[in-house]
Amino acid sequence: MTEGTVPDIVISRLPWYLQTLNTMAKEGLHTVSSNMLAERLGTTAAQIRKDLSFFGGFGKQGMGYSIYYLIEQLQKILNLDRIWQVVVVGAGDLGRALTHYQGFAARGIEIVLLFDVDPKVIGSQVGSVVVQHIDLLEEEVQSMGIKIAILTVPAEAAQLTADRLVQADVEAILNYAPVTLIVPEDVRVQHIDPVLNLQHLMYYLGDD
Amino acid sequence: MTEGTVPDIVISRLPWYLQTLNTMAKEGLHTVSSNMLAERLGTTAAQIRKDLSFFGGFGKQGMGYSIYYLIEQLQKILNLDRIWQVVVVGAGDLGRALTHYQGFAARGIEIVLLFDVDPKVIGSQVGSVVVQHIDLLEEEVQSMGIKIAILTVPAEAAQLTADRLVQADVEAILNYAPVTLIVPEDVRVQHIDPVLNLQHLMYYLGDD
Repeated sequence: MTEGTVPDIVISRLPWYLQTLNTMAKEGLHTVSSNMLAERLGTTAAQIRKDLSFFGGFGKQGMGYSIYYLIEQLQKILNLDRIWQVVVVGAGDLGRALTHYQGFAARGIEIVLLFDVDPKVIGSQVGSVVVQHIDLLEEEVQSMGIKIAILTVPAEAAQLTADRLVQADVEAILNYAPVTLIVPEDVRVQHIDPVLNLQHLMYYLGDD
Repeated sequence: MTEGTVPDIVISRLPWYLQTLNTMAKEGLHTVSSNMLAERLGTTAAQIRKDLSFFGGFGKQGMGYSIYYLIEQLQKILNLDRIWQVVVVGAGDLGRALTHYQGFAARGIEIVLLFDVDPKVIGSQVGSVVVQHIDLLEEEVQSMGIKIAILTVPAEAAQLTADRLVQADVEAILNYAPVTLIVPEDVRVQHIDPVLNLQHLMYYLGDD
């Protein structure tokens, strides 16, 4: 089965499986049944088996999965067997928090560029990078061959910034700005907005 | 149709529809077809119509939707016709960025409590709140009747903190810690981890 035929919703669950398998490995476990994994994840064993079957399945019937083997396979499928360099655009609170974030390095993600328009922050050090003026964006991103961007600019600047990133050959954008970005078909966007998650939760709080 | 029978995946899309409708309203639009809305959202008109049909549907065949009416209805469904007070646990970079975040107030979300264990930050002002010691969590959260928490503590502290929030009658947790929380069935958790979103994107970058 080729990559293109796996539903995106299945792909979206693989990092989540991987995270839990890594936790289990740290706890000293060696094998896991789909039932056990489902319980940890709050999902069903059938869904896990179905998702993994897109990639050939990784366990023998009734034997459970080898945790290390499954981790290795998921890492390969998700292209995590390398370091990914990432550019952050927007050096406000959130951009700085992300650039400092300790959880990236351990999972193969390296923030190597950070841009802003504010003269007050340009030239300042955030973690191991120095904030640069956004005028340098295309040049720097292209020369380093960076394909992934994190966008933390204000809503009104988001589309224009996304256009510049696309121009610089970025192929994947993690968007924290509260707008739906319009990008060419071959560019992938994931949107993170805590308000959307909170509103989702509020639906269930209505009867208090 | 009662709330419990609407699939959670449908609920997850409503805040996203609402956000785009708000943008359209700001642009001066008054009505929208499901095709137009679908194009903006990168989804299909059929899905939008099906999602809205769970709540009775809000447009006449061929007439499109009134944007204001649809906004009003979605706000009611999602219980957004009030202010929600929220507690943030963890006053690190991310907790501070969220507490400062300008996008909350306009959408009815008010961060009113912020807790940490670090003596260096306790007592400091972040936006309009003062960081308090986590020992006060249960007392403060309960006395204010807060039902929603944002968790930005380190992974190793996340489960214990979630247990304390549940003890304090919190019913919904937005979890930024990279662990799957175990909570009682009547407590809802949404997990935000940029690494999972980035890994999802990396899947599509593999053939470079």
